[in-house]
Parts: sequence; C-alpha cells; structure tokens
Amino acid sequence: MGPKPATDIDAVRLSSMAMRQCIRTGAHQGHTSGLAAGKLQCNLAILPEDYALDFLRFCQRNPKPCPVVGVGDTGQAMLPTLGRDIDIRTDVPRYRVFRDGEFAQEVTDIRSLWSDDLVTVALGCSFTFENALMRAGIPVRHIEMGRNVPMFRTNIDLVPAGPFDGQMVVTMRPLPEDQIDAARTISAKYPQAHGAPIAVGDPAAIGITDLATPDYGDPVDIRPGEVPVFWACGVTPQNVLRSAKLPICITHAPGHMLITDIAEDAETTLYTDLNPQGDTL
Amino acid sequence: MGPKPATDIDAVRLSSMAMRQCIRTGAHQGHTSGLAAGKLQCNLAILPEDYALDFLRFCQRNPKPCPVVGVGDTGQAMLPTLGRDIDIRTDVPRYRVFRDGEFAQEVTDIRSLWSDDLVTVALGCSFTFENALMRAGIPVRHIEMGRNVPMFRTNIDLVPAGPFDGQMVVTMRPLPEDQIDAARTISAKYPQAHGAPIAVGDPAAIGITDLATPDYGDPVDIRPGEVPVFWACGVTPQNVLRSAKLPICITHAPGHMLITDIAEDAETTLYTDLNPQGDTL
Repeated sequence: MGPKPATDIDAVRLSSMAMRQCIRTGAHQGHTSGLAAGKLQCNLAILPEDYALDFLRFCQRNPKPCPVVGVGDTGQAMLPTLGRDIDIRTDVPRYRVFRDGEFAQEVTDIRSLWSDDLVTVALGCSFTFENALMRAGIPVRHIEMGRNVPMFRTNIDLVPAGPFDGQMVVTMRPLPEDQIDAARTISAKYPQAHGAPIAVGDPAAIGITDLATPDYGDPVDIRPGEVPVFWACGVTPQNVLRSAKLPICITHAPGHMLITDIAEDAETTLYTDLNPQGDTL
Repeated sequence: MGPKPATDIDAVRLSSMAMRQCIRTGAHQGHTSGLAAGKLQCNLAILPEDYALDFLRFCQRNPKPCPVVGVGDTGQAMLPTLGRDIDIRTDVPRYRVFRDGEFAQEVTDIRSLWSDDLVTVALGCSFTFENALMRAGIPVRHIEMGRNVPMFRTNIDLVPAGPFDGQMVVTMRPLPEDQIDAARTISAKYPQAHGAPIAVGDPAAIGITDLATPDYGDPVDIRPGEVPVFWACGVTPQNVLRSAKLPICITHAPGHMLITDIAEDAETTLYTDLNPQGDTL
C-alpha cells in the first residue's frame, strides 16, 4: 500500500524467508507492501476449529472475496504448505484480535493467545494482481498516490454457510476505458487473488453511494475519462468473521500480511518438494 | 467415457437440469460422458461431518487431483451452489457405498442411506479439459478408441491432512510432441478440472512400470512419435477416502458423474443469482 515500510532494514531486497525472520524477531513491524517481490502474500483468519468447516464452506462459496490459499492443521502453528518454517504466531507483523465480534487488541505476536483448537486460514490478497497489472504497464492509482486502496461496502449478498453471511466489500481502482479489458484479463489469471473484477462502472449498481468517501482506506482521484473498476476485497471475510461473533478470531492488521515462499504466478498455492518455488537466504 | 449411454432418451440434447430429472426418475442410469454439453460434471465424495474439515484440508493441499467445486451443508441433500434443484441423493446415475474402507454396494439412489451428519463434496473432473482439448482440435485417444481413460498409481506422495494420505493417481493421454504445449496451456485454464499435466514423458519417473497395463480403465494405443502426458486424476481422492476407512463414504460410480448447471468455462464454480450460468428446460 502507500507508505514506505517503517523499518531500518533493507526490507525490499530480502527473500521471503529472511523477511519473515525479521518480522519474527521484531526487526520489522511495518506493513508488507512491496516486500519479497514476486511472492504470494496472504490475508489471515485464525479461528476455533468448531467454526472452521463452516468457514471453509463459506470461502468455497465466495471464492472471489475469500480465495483460500492455505489451511493449517488444528492447533498447529506451522504452515508447511505455504513455505519453510512459517510460524503463524510470530511471522506476521501485526495481528488484530477479536472476541465475540468486538475488537480486543492489536499485537505483534500471538504466542500467548495460541491454543490447541485454533485453525489458520490463509487467503489470497490483491497485492498479487496489482503487481501483475503494474508489470503490464497498467498503473494502480492508490499506489501512485501513496495511499491505501479505497474499499466500499456493497449490496452484493454473499452465499452463506453456517454463521457466516453478509455483503461483499470491494476495492476500487479507476482505469481509462481502454485499459479495462487488459486489467480484466490479467486479474482473471489470479483466482487465488480475487480474480477478475466484480463490477465495472456505475457504483450505484452495487450499492455504493459516494466514491469520494470509502468505507475503509483512502479516496483516490478519478480523472476525466476514467471508469471505476471494482474487485472483491479481503476485508469481506474479516467483516463476516466479526459478524459471526466467534469467541475468538485473529486476523492480520490491514496491510500487514503473511509473506509466503510461493511464487505469485505459481499454478497452485503450495510449497512442497514437488513445487519448490521458495528462495534461499 | 467410451460407450454410448445405455438409455432410450435422447440424452445428448437435454439440458443439465432435464438430464438430472431423467437420472432422478431412473430413466437414465448410464454414464454421463458427453451429456449436457458444456456443463461442469463432478466427482462425488459424501462423508460424515467429523471427517469433512480434514477432507477439505486434504483437498486444499492437493488441488490438482482434488479440485473442490462445491460443498454441501451438513445433512443437506440439496446443492444450490451447483445448480437448480440438485438433490444429491437421487441425481447421480450410480453411487458406490464404502463401509470401513470396503466396497459395500453399488446403487442408483442413496435416499435410504442419507443421514443428518453427511457432507457432500463435489470435485471437478477431467471431462472439462478433455472437452476443451477436443474443441481446440487436439484429439483424445481413449475417446477416439471408445475406451475408458487409462489410469495409473504413481509414487507421487500427496500432502496429508488428518487420516487422508497416499499417492497420486494419474490419467494418461498420448500426444504428438508438437501438441503438448497447447494441451498444457489449455488444461491449465481449468484448475477446477485438474489443471495442467503433472508429468510429461518417462512413466518410470513417477513410478509407472507399464503403460500397457493401467491400474484402472483401459489401455490405449501410443503411436510412434507420441509422448505420454499425465494429469492428476479424480480416482486419487476415492483411494484416499477408502484408505482412511471411514465408517461410511459414498462416491459416484466411475463415469457416472453429477451434472451441474455451471458452464465448464465459468470463472467460478458457483450457480447463483449473480452468476446464473444454467439453462432452462
């Protein structure tokens, strides 16, 4: 996202695993945008096992806002399918803890909160397709402006599962008419990162009243001739988790993602001996 | 697969929903290859809820052999995310029932076996990418020969989850060298249907000793200059389910798939008001 990482280390050049080490030791507590270039970053949802089957069903039914890229074993802090030596209790820069749906605290380490019944679900994030857009010469406005992406609640109903339900949250990126098809084609290649846009054009059609006042993040300029393009957003599952009022639920803090060892353009979001996309220190 | 549907109805021309009605009433009890052209067909795994979280974790970790395209609510026979009025107890032509990992019976209706704790998992199948290959002018040998696809056990270890573990089963389709890249590109577009090949060339590299004696299905001719191409196969989760020795597990009989209302080339495997890819009777 916008601001530069608040750190003294030369974070941009570090490998994914080295970056996680810096995060684990507390040397980096800032956001992760632009770090470990080319590696898949993830939104995070940690929840009690009793709710995990319904949450996975919910994600399966709402794959554009909730693309599952990894699921931990119950009570297991390590996530071997996402990279080497990933300890989800320490390897994300900032976590948010919710109890009964209410925000409880923001922390940089959840070792004291970990328990045998927690399940980690890692979800793809928009960094992946934004990087692909920029590689293809399609500028991303909020990055150009050094801001967080504007996000909006919509009237698009999600497909429910158990206690999980609600409406989709979307991000908005303004694009000139003649770049929309390319942006659609490029982002569609990343189903693990929200895929193709959910809507193009009229914000009112999806229940958005004012593009200048996003529900989350920052507003961005929309220039003459540009059209708002809306993608499904990872804030969706966070809102849905809060609404379900789980006794405990832990997410990443916005912009402070889990950095995996998986290449952004890998066919599957799996780090295994068969698919060793990671790098060395 | 090969043989013509054993039915009096003009099955090939019926819509997906009409075809399911024929299956439900018993008018069609044959295989489903070539039926409801253009609609996603699914492998089927029905298992007790106690095992469903681990099975979904297993599928997430092994997405090429086990691409999840739909998950039912616990105890619910209807699958609204896959199409209109799908009743999984009656809408598949043939089912196989396993108890403690042993084959128990083959039936055309599982209403008497249904219970409140069963969860249906629908998995993508190779019909989808085979259709895409043929549309692109790449012939598929076992279809040309009117046979079932040859399938082989391999030495490729799966990523375990709970009681689910084992080795991958693959299908083999021989292709001339100059069609392999195109076949890879085309099948990679269908991650919901096993995606790109797992291996190309030397069978011994993945633990296959003799292409003339498949472990399942029928052998096919490999002509001079042709190379064996291996794709992950939906028999993999069936073997894994049997090895886990669940008290009960129900699958489709080979070739007798669930026909959904979802277009084979839809971006997501969801049938909803937002994504009404179905057709009318």
